[in-house]
Amino acid sequence: MAELNQLMENEVFMAFASYATIILSKMMFMSTATAFYRLTKKVFANPEDCASFGKGENAKKYMRTDDSVERVRRAHLNDLENIVPFLGIGLLYSLSGPDLSTALLHFRVFVGARVYHTLAYLTPLPQPNRALAFFVGYGVTLSMAYRVLRSKLYL
Amino acid sequence: MAELNQLMENEVFMAFASYATIILSKMMFMSTATAFYRLTKKVFANPEDCASFGKGENAKKYMRTDDSVERVRRAHLNDLENIVPFLGIGLLYSLSGPDLSTALLHFRVFVGARVYHTLAYLTPLPQPNRALAFFVGYGVTLSMAYRVLRSKLYL
Amino acid sequence: MAELNQLMENEVFMAFASYATIILSKMMFMSTATAFYRLTKKVFANPEDCASFGKGENAKKYMRTDDSVERVRRAHLNDLENIVPFLGIGLLYSLSGPDLSTALLHFRVFVGARVYHTLAYLTPLPQPNRALAFFVGYGVTLSMAYRVLRSKLYL
Repeated sequence: MAELNQLMENEVFMAFASYATIILSKMMFMSTATAFYRLTKKVFANPEDCASFGKGENAKKYMRTDDSVERVRRAHLNDLENIVPFLGIGLLYSLSGPDLSTALLHFRVFVGARVYHTLAYLTPLPQPNRALAFFVGYGVTLSMAYRVLRSKLYL
Repeated sequence: MAELNQLMENEVFMAFASYATIILSKMMFMSTATAFYRLTKKVFANPEDCASFGKGENAKKYMRTDDSVERVRRAHLNDLENIVPFLGIGLLYSLSGPDLSTALLHFRVFVGARVYHTLAYLTPLPQPNRALAFFVGYGVTLSMAYRVLRSKLYL
Repeated sequence: MAELNQLMENEVFMAFASYATIILSKMMFMSTATAFYRLTKKVFANPEDCASFGKGENAKKYMRTDDSVERVRRAHLNDLENIVPFLGIGLLYSLSGPDLSTALLHFRVFVGARVYHTLAYLTPLPQPNRALAFFVGYGVTLSMAYRVLRSKLYL
């Protein structure tokens, strides 16, 4: 266990663990938001959902799509598409021995940009708010990828 | 290599490796299920798929959607949305030094809930079977996130 | 830090880090491709995008779907569905102490297959090019999963 403890006593790794857990929890919140809109607006994708949550004679009419629900789902998918590379590349970056302050800057900017992306998507704020939030997070991930490949390339 | 071996001799980490591999293999099975339905029902999303797998003069008519295929795809996307946080948070949780029995409980309940979720989605079972399976898995992941943040927060 | 350095001096782990970073960067490129098609073809999913990027009186008409955009999005989602298991299982596989040459073979074939899959999807090449690329990547991931479970099963 000594080695494991030392891994978790490494400050960069602890910081990565904290920010990764926070941004994943935020992503999970999108599932709850989708469920909330589906139940309050009665908008379902499956007949069995209509039957149980749609109450009423004509429950099948609740099999439909809705703008708010589709908006949350697009925001959720965009999160997945961007947080998966952050997790993979960020983990390897944390193990490549970066400066603590540089690493913290990367993690904080990424988490801030993704939280702002969600706000911009769900409010919605006028463009280019969402586009900028997206590209800031994208740039942070590419910057970590560059560092991993420069310092540890082995093909 | 000594350190690597010790990481893999850590029982919590070995358990995480086993359950993560099992649930990811289950998720990969959804791709095969989609392909199976697409080929047997002749339901394709791309013209080049119709041309090769749809045989016949009027292959373009196979560019369509189908309830069974869409159902598998929704189950697959829900898996992605939930298994990605489990992988990220579960890895960090395994490294944060939890009790073996507590960790095993988390991993087993999560894997069981997600397998049940797939069964409930594909059968389909009446609600709230699927909703309960979803929230059990969700709760397990949040419980691990809480433990990671409580013991190792570094912002 | 000694342990971290030794992790990153392990050749299998360095190879995994390199190939994982490369394939994640390729996946991120799909976001840029989607944005490029959306902007050049003026095909948007949100009213606020039409308002800012669609210029003109009748911007709402740009809320539509388009074959090229949907094709890139399907390729992107297929990447997510396959690269997430590769990341999770590949990380655990790298820690399970495989031969360097066997590990390199797995990583190289997977990355090659996924790059070919993207080319086959976006060109598009006639089937079964894309199907073969998909199943090669799938087989590589299952082969690593088998190795992890055989050597480290702990349930």
